[in-house]
Amino acid sequence: MSQLQAVLNDIDNNQELALERLFELLKLQSISTDSQYVQECVKAADWLVNDLSSIGFDAARHDTTGHPMVVGKLHAGSDKPHLLFYGHYDVQPVDPLNLWNNAPFEPALENTPNGKVIRARGAADDKGQLMTFVEACRAWKNVSGSLPVNITVFFEGEEESGSPSLIPFMQNHVDLLKADMALVCDTGMWDSNTPAISTMLRGMVGEQLTIIGPSLDLHSGMYGGPAINPIRVLNKILAGIHDDSGRITLDGFYDGVTEPTEQIKQQWAALNHDEAGFLGSVGLSKPAGESGYSVLEQIWSRPTFDVNGIWGGYTGEGFKTVLPSEASAKVSFRLVGKQDPIKIQQTFQQYVRDQLPEDCSVTFHSKDASAATVMPINAPEFGRAHAALCEEWENDAVYAGCGGSIPVVGHIKDILAMDSLLVGFGQDDDAIHSPNEKYDLKSFHKGTRSWARILDALATS
Amino acid sequence: MSQLQAVLNDIDNNQELALERLFELLKLQSISTDSQYVQECVKAADWLVNDLSSIGFDAARHDTTGHPMVVGKLHAGSDKPHLLFYGHYDVQPVDPLNLWNNAPFEPALENTPNGKVIRARGAADDKGQLMTFVEACRAWKNVSGSLPVNITVFFEGEEESGSPSLIPFMQNHVDLLKADMALVCDTGMWDSNTPAISTMLRGMVGEQLTIIGPSLDLHSGMYGGPAINPIRVLNKILAGIHDDSGRITLDGFYDGVTEPTEQIKQQWAALNHDEAGFLGSVGLSKPAGESGYSVLEQIWSRPTFDVNGIWGGYTGEGFKTVLPSEASAKVSFRLVGKQDPIKIQQTFQQYVRDQLPEDCSVTFHSKDASAATVMPINAPEFGRAHAALCEEWENDAVYAGCGGSIPVVGHIKDILAMDSLLVGFGQDDDAIHSPNEKYDLKSFHKGTRSWARILDALATS
Repeated sequence: MSQLQAVLNDIDNNQELALERLFELLKLQSISTDSQYVQECVKAADWLVNDLSSIGFDAARHDTTGHPMVVGKLHAGSDKPHLLFYGHYDVQPVDPLNLWNNAPFEPALENTPNGKVIRARGAADDKGQLMTFVEACRAWKNVSGSLPVNITVFFEGEEESGSPSLIPFMQNHVDLLKADMALVCDTGMWDSNTPAISTMLRGMVGEQLTIIGPSLDLHSGMYGGPAINPIRVLNKILAGIHDDSGRITLDGFYDGVTEPTEQIKQQWAALNHDEAGFLGSVGLSKPAGESGYSVLEQIWSRPTFDVNGIWGGYTGEGFKTVLPSEASAKVSFRLVGKQDPIKIQQTFQQYVRDQLPEDCSVTFHSKDASAATVMPINAPEFGRAHAALCEEWENDAVYAGCGGSIPVVGHIKDILAMDSLLVGFGQDDDAIHSPNEKYDLKSFHKGTRSWARILDALATS
Repeated sequence: MSQLQAVLNDIDNNQELALERLFELLKLQSISTDSQYVQECVKAADWLVNDLSSIGFDAARHDTTGHPMVVGKLHAGSDKPHLLFYGHYDVQPVDPLNLWNNAPFEPALENTPNGKVIRARGAADDKGQLMTFVEACRAWKNVSGSLPVNITVFFEGEEESGSPSLIPFMQNHVDLLKADMALVCDTGMWDSNTPAISTMLRGMVGEQLTIIGPSLDLHSGMYGGPAINPIRVLNKILAGIHDDSGRITLDGFYDGVTEPTEQIKQQWAALNHDEAGFLGSVGLSKPAGESGYSVLEQIWSRPTFDVNGIWGGYTGEGFKTVLPSEASAKVSFRLVGKQDPIKIQQTFQQYVRDQLPEDCSVTFHSKDASAATVMPINAPEFGRAHAALCEEWENDAVYAGCGGSIPVVGHIKDILAMDSLLVGFGQDDDAIHSPNEKYDLKSFHKGTRSWARILDALATS
């Protein structure tokens, strides 16, 4: 029996223990965006330090001005490649809580028509995913006493809240984090039987804006008409960002957007994406993005603008004829290709200012700003990882785009001068960022086995 | 000394007691729109029944499916005119609470550069105003043992929440409420030295709408582009209701809107309304209503559309790249002349439905729907009340429009076949519906004296 086969067997034999460990981590309410959960984030970081240490990693919690970082190292030999694995232990908020069928931080294994699932906030994004890698390391250590490659793991706790500490931490710890290549497990499979390697990630620009009109809330009977209503101003500004064909109207917005190569387009077309099924699963039927593009192209190769939240005036029970003093929105752009996030942020702010009536002012609170990342899928490591995935899943792994934004991949490139190999085991119906998030038990188990194989494949550099 | 003079002296001599009584009423948290304050509304109704009874009224609380009504009668003689006085004891919600300088239900008398003010939620709208009438009745009873006219008082507790019980109650109690004419004290003065009689009230159509897109909240990275965002749909729908000149674009919306007569226009022009001061007091400088109309015309003779509240997606601390399942708004139209509220409600709903993309649906929750009311200002009672006001304030009382909506005036006309004389003592800076609501002590005191005079003036029918 090969050493790899022994490692895979060890993973199979220890599934229950692995699940128990994941449940411990899922119970910690590490919502990074809400300051009342600060201590839960610290607990999650400490849990990871302890767990890594139990495998033999030299692991430590690194406190920041935000939530702590966790870095662990396990040396295999100076002749071996060195890989940096990134994941995040923080999770999204859980509201609206009333739409959850179970408590979000009481993880449960549930039977569903599509197999067993792990139900909890963070099950898929990203605690379940990062633990596939940790469990793969554990199995290698159990069986062979060491890992086939040198590994540095790097977990952050601010991924869901704009990662304010990430760039300074990386800049101050280049030596600690520098390796030959990065591995990231925060993406999805093509379908439940087909693993995927990401070819690119969309970038992001996030802004919160508040339009201020009258200096106090007014009675619409007394002032309705002559007094400007900031909700009306906000509606008009936000409505003006898309034209009727779904294109974004900001000046120069599409600078740096390129069409995918013919080869990539053919590859995507060959996937025979089930558009009706993809949209139908969330109650929709018609692609709402730019006309002339397939659903996959809209997600994988086109930039977008979305309002993620809006509020103003009276929103409680009943009715109040108020003419409010201010109105706010949280918005985000997803970027592709070489779109410049800083330029787009400035263009957006200027567009808003240009639209303001004389009596209104605006404040901005900038969140994320990161460019899209395109992966070097022709590099040899990508081919080896691809082969390992094909073997585990007994199916051809696909090179897929990704509509999400994982800014750390850009920082890894910019600050650490490393490419990233993105492999993840999420499914489209995982409901990440939504009530009733889940992670397929199969994703957790075969994801762990996949990493065990990839580590083996990458050892022969 | 005339009997009227004795009554006025009695009012002057009992100011402190009158204020104590008002403070008792202001302490009751009778927010009608929020179901957690149901018992406070009942307490306010009971307080009024007791107070009216102490004057000699035959008063009772009438329970409804909503908040109770209070009706009290004091007979003067069958040869005297019979007047119905209407007021409301419920108040607006107090949010945002952090903008109040004192607790909204702990009334206080404050010195300000413009004189003493009574500071509390409901001080002006409408508890302070209705108590001017009650105190005038008390003084008449004190001094002469009876009132100069037959009075029925009628207080409701749902004016700030759409008055759901009002029409059925009035329809079922026509005999109890029927009189020769109605008096309503829920409006303002022209300025702090100039009393006003209202010539018309704007009507209202209120709607809450919810746009539903995807069947669950989505991750904008995974679905941003092909999935329709209901906030975007809502923004576009609401932004489309005004054109660039401030006119409302709904089909047939201006049917029934007439320009004021030349006489009225001249009267309004002669008021020399301080537009800069009116807008400047709330931090604005430029009239935002339809171009081509003065501020007074925009408020007193033009219909409007306002969004009173909007919400959708993630609105908490931090950032969440959610693509929400739904988005909602509370909106209202103010109507003038003969605009048909039901037709406008239907036109609005149809407009929204016509704008909906294929994958969105909408639900409506209709609130108020009332037509505008135009007063018979040439009737003799109006002339007598006008003279009484001129005498009390030693200044020419003005016939003024009113931008607000007091639906009960329409119901009094339709159900009880009576005209209404609207006299009120509010000031523009009372901050009704806003934090730090106040009522000038002078309004309270001279308002009471004004009603004492008007009752006397109307006795000689």
